[in-house]
Amino acid sequence: MTRPRLVSTQAELKDATSSLLAEAGASGRPALGLVLTMGALHAGHAALVRAARQASDVVVVSIFVNPLQFGEEEDLNRYPRTLEADLDLLAECGADVVFAPGVEEVYPDGGPMVRITAGELGAKFEGASRPGHFDGALTVVAKLLHLGLPAGDADYRTFFGQKDAQQLVLVKRMVADLNFPVEVVGVPIVRDDDGLALSSRNRFLSEAEREAALVLSRSLAYLRGQAERHEALDIGGALAMIDSAPLVQPDYLEVVDPKTLEPLAFNCRETPFTGEALALVAAKVGPVRLIDNVQLGY
Amino acid sequence: MTRPRLVSTQAELKDATSSLLAEAGASGRPALGLVLTMGALHAGHAALVRAARQASDVVVVSIFVNPLQFGEEEDLNRYPRTLEADLDLLAECGADVVFAPGVEEVYPDGGPMVRITAGELGAKFEGASRPGHFDGALTVVAKLLHLGLPAGDADYRTFFGQKDAQQLVLVKRMVADLNFPVEVVGVPIVRDDDGLALSSRNRFLSEAEREAALVLSRSLAYLRGQAERHEALDIGGALAMIDSAPLVQPDYLEVVDPKTLEPLAFNCRETPFTGEALALVAAKVGPVRLIDNVQLGY
Repeated sequence: MTRPRLVSTQAELKDATSSLLAEAGASGRPALGLVLTMGALHAGHAALVRAARQASDVVVVSIFVNPLQFGEEEDLNRYPRTLEADLDLLAECGADVVFAPGVEEVYPDGGPMVRITAGELGAKFEGASRPGHFDGALTVVAKLLHLGLPAGDADYRTFFGQKDAQQLVLVKRMVADLNFPVEVVGVPIVRDDDGLALSSRNRFLSEAEREAALVLSRSLAYLRGQAERHEALDIGGALAMIDSAPLVQPDYLEVVDPKTLEPLAFNCRETPFTGEALALVAAKVGPVRLIDNVQLGY
Repeated sequence: MTRPRLVSTQAELKDATSSLLAEAGASGRPALGLVLTMGALHAGHAALVRAARQASDVVVVSIFVNPLQFGEEEDLNRYPRTLEADLDLLAECGADVVFAPGVEEVYPDGGPMVRITAGELGAKFEGASRPGHFDGALTVVAKLLHLGLPAGDADYRTFFGQKDAQQLVLVKRMVADLNFPVEVVGVPIVRDDDGLALSSRNRFLSEAEREAALVLSRSLAYLRGQAERHEALDIGGALAMIDSAPLVQPDYLEVVDPKTLEPLAFNCRETPFTGEALALVAAKVGPVRLIDNVQLGY
């Protein structure tokens, strides 16, 4: 198992991908797949890299903890950094190049003056509890998507997890709204055997909290069952499940349009479910904020 | 004189530029030059297209009146549209392709949800009197720069006039801050023989207003003379010139850093001018708002 090539500057990244793409291009139009991460990789990230591997000749994974998307109250320095283990996992998944730039490389002039703004869609759900988070996240995603842009003719795709549903919708909107030359691919949530969606925050859960956190995926499965049977969605009941669990403080549980995240009017016990929707949930479990979601009707 | 090829969709634009770039690419790495306009072209735009022509194998000019950068009070429909005359001028300047999309082509989903924001730099000078203007302008510039992106390996440059100094600084910042793969080239202001900077708004000036408007370039020339002689800049005196002209209502006259537009402390009669700066002026002449600027020290 060869470790991926580790680079830390834009120039090295261009060099590394150009030569790999040129090799691949000998037998037709090559494809580059980019996965953006903040490190602390787990099986959820591995699924992204494997999806990229399957669709691409050249797979680039970036590891960059973006100061711009952390609020003042949030501890940027507490974010886990596990580069050696990350590189092992990425070797296993077949990444070709790992781009791990320093903050100076990404923000040579200090913070960017001109930025991306997520607008209204960035102010709700996760944005409501993390003001400015999505503006910062989209700004660095825009930067990294351009830093990873293949030179020459190539298909270009980036892979984002469905776990961060709002982020995925926003990245898709950004790419469409600003005509960035990349295709955004959503990759299904990876869950532990007990149903808990993988997250780098799960490591902060005590055993009891982890057990309690299962109510999130259970409440979503409850709604998914109703959707599959074309019954009315019992959102109140799902919320009550979460509310009554020990150690769990629900923030929101909503059924929304999967493209716009506008609320859908399924929270009425009399309307049978049809169409497509996304059920989003967020809660604090002990001190750890967790999110999860499930696709309904597709 | 062949007229440039007129296209109105992204697909046609890609087609037209790809084949031209492929031809040019036979003898080395080709270069594409893009000039963004809102039509109503005059000799100022011609200078942009000629600069693009000189630096590029393939020259694309877009003509798009962007609804996003007009305020509610501003009359989008009053903006002059002169496509036939524009095409004649562009033929003369050697444009290869003219991209004139409809609003639906650029904004297929209505207004973009995710946008560019100019930040603090977009709130001063022209931004102060046109709230949201630069956010809208940068958003469409971002879109058009990506729509014009050459497929395959090519140099990519876009040409902006120094006349709109704040816009030029902001576009350069956007491209640097978000790592867009294009080089932004500033092209010097074109002036009439009497010194008036060309602008599509000049057509709205009466004869008396046009005569009065000359005080703007004269006040800038006054400062430029002082800078060239390394004297202190008499900004108060320059402002007084404008203030005492009939029909002219000054908005601002400031000497700023050419990269950040931060005010520089030259407005002191005792400090001789050194270094590089930009003198920016804006005024209403009769009903018409005009801007002008001059580089000092370079």
